[in-house]
Amino acid sequence: MADFEVLSDNRTFGGHTRFIQHAASSTASPMTFAMYEPPQAQSQRVPILYWLSGLTCTAENFTVKAGAQRFAAEHGVMLVVPDTSPRNTGIDGEDDAYDLGSGAGFYVNATTDGWRDHYQMYDYVTVELPDLVKAEFNVDPERESIFGHSMGGHGALVCTLRNPGRYRSVSAFAPICAPTESGLGQKAFRAYLGDDANTWAAYDTHLLLETATDCLPIFVDQGADDEFVANLMPEKLKAVCADKGHQLTLRMQSGYDHSYYFVSTFMDEHMSYHAAALKR
Amino acid sequence: MADFEVLSDNRTFGGHTRFIQHAASSTASPMTFAMYEPPQAQSQRVPILYWLSGLTCTAENFTVKAGAQRFAAEHGVMLVVPDTSPRNTGIDGEDDAYDLGSGAGFYVNATTDGWRDHYQMYDYVTVELPDLVKAEFNVDPERESIFGHSMGGHGALVCTLRNPGRYRSVSAFAPICAPTESGLGQKAFRAYLGDDANTWAAYDTHLLLETATDCLPIFVDQGADDEFVANLMPEKLKAVCADKGHQLTLRMQSGYDHSYYFVSTFMDEHMSYHAAALKR
Repeated sequence: MADFEVLSDNRTFGGHTRFIQHAASSTASPMTFAMYEPPQAQSQRVPILYWLSGLTCTAENFTVKAGAQRFAAEHGVMLVVPDTSPRNTGIDGEDDAYDLGSGAGFYVNATTDGWRDHYQMYDYVTVELPDLVKAEFNVDPERESIFGHSMGGHGALVCTLRNPGRYRSVSAFAPICAPTESGLGQKAFRAYLGDDANTWAAYDTHLLLETATDCLPIFVDQGADDEFVANLMPEKLKAVCADKGHQLTLRMQSGYDHSYYFVSTFMDEHMSYHAAALKR
Repeated sequence: MADFEVLSDNRTFGGHTRFIQHAASSTASPMTFAMYEPPQAQSQRVPILYWLSGLTCTAENFTVKAGAQRFAAEHGVMLVVPDTSPRNTGIDGEDDAYDLGSGAGFYVNATTDGWRDHYQMYDYVTVELPDLVKAEFNVDPERESIFGHSMGGHGALVCTLRNPGRYRSVSAFAPICAPTESGLGQKAFRAYLGDDANTWAAYDTHLLLETATDCLPIFVDQGADDEFVANLMPEKLKAVCADKGHQLTLRMQSGYDHSYYFVSTFMDEHMSYHAAALKR
């Protein structure tokens, strides 16, 4: 049995919203995640839907703002929401910028001095956290899907592309589609992965799609008035999917920006999309 | 035309979530409120539903946590969400405690030295803010309803009871039902209204219900595991309604606490309740 502490537990839509802290071995630090256990988990194993959050977020942003619990209860899906990085690791510079270090793990396994001691977020979200959830809660370990927002949309797509057959479905809100091509992504990848840009491709959705052969359909909502679109590059996602014949549904949503007001608006459709795949 | 500044405007469920600041004359200070304008307001006058928030809240808590915009868009209702007090007035002690001053206006018109210069929240939420909304947005001034949470549930009930015929419907989540009987309410009323407890009755739901003759049906959800129930006293609401024959639907919700997780869970039913009254 894993050792973890339930920090809070609030009845929500007949189930439980919980914040949980545990000593993670992959990141060699305490990690906090949120989960929503739907009422169906009282009597049956339920599928798991992971949400990966964006820059500056903790597990709380999605949990209080997205309105997803209503639909998770309706569909009988467990939501699992990791933090976006380790915290308080003591690594030099971890709290100096919003786009590097705390709140900005980018879901990679860092290889550079300092960062590699703790910033193993790829392993954390694809292995350690799922293992804990599967060991401790009433879930079906064979039914997993994943989605996310912005940096977390990038994370969801990368996790899916690097693990063919693992997830039943993937979707994203305003994902970072080509981090190796943007200043934001280059800064993070250089810090976490070093100066050799060849190593960056393993965490870049549009490059992974160049060679992907067993790729899930990709469902993306993107605000047409998103103020961060220059760092997101949905056009590169569109181009590679068209070029390689990958199935993409990319909806440009008129008038919407990058905020959780946008995310909450289309949450019901994403939840229905994943629920349908998880029920199969 | 009133002078106001739109601080933010986010497309949400086809409409607009806005935060707006204006120089309020009733409180002699700048006031910030939130509103959700549903898509229907583009082509027709929509009814107004006021939300009054609880202690420590700003206009933001409800707006990001309650998930109400989805239903306001569905029903075509304008949400108007005032702050819970003036801010930065310079009144001695305004920021010393969570239950007095900033974030704790209790929706009264203060009469005591100092507080009375700015803490005129009853006039603000029943007169000045409605006047601004009716002058500036595409609303039907004759169709208004009101609801709230905790201190804001108290506010919603008091506004309704003091203005027979004004609102079409009223509801509350975990309202403070008898502030003159709790330490929390007594502290606030003594500060804002002075030592003469006779003046407090004008802002106490269970006392107002003693003499009310033209009272709307009252719809209340109360968490059965609410950690603040000693200051809420739903039993006094129940007793006076039974004694005086007022129509009360008081639902004790098993397992729920005082949080917005509770509020969000039952938001759809409250929204449907008000929408039905506002359509008549």
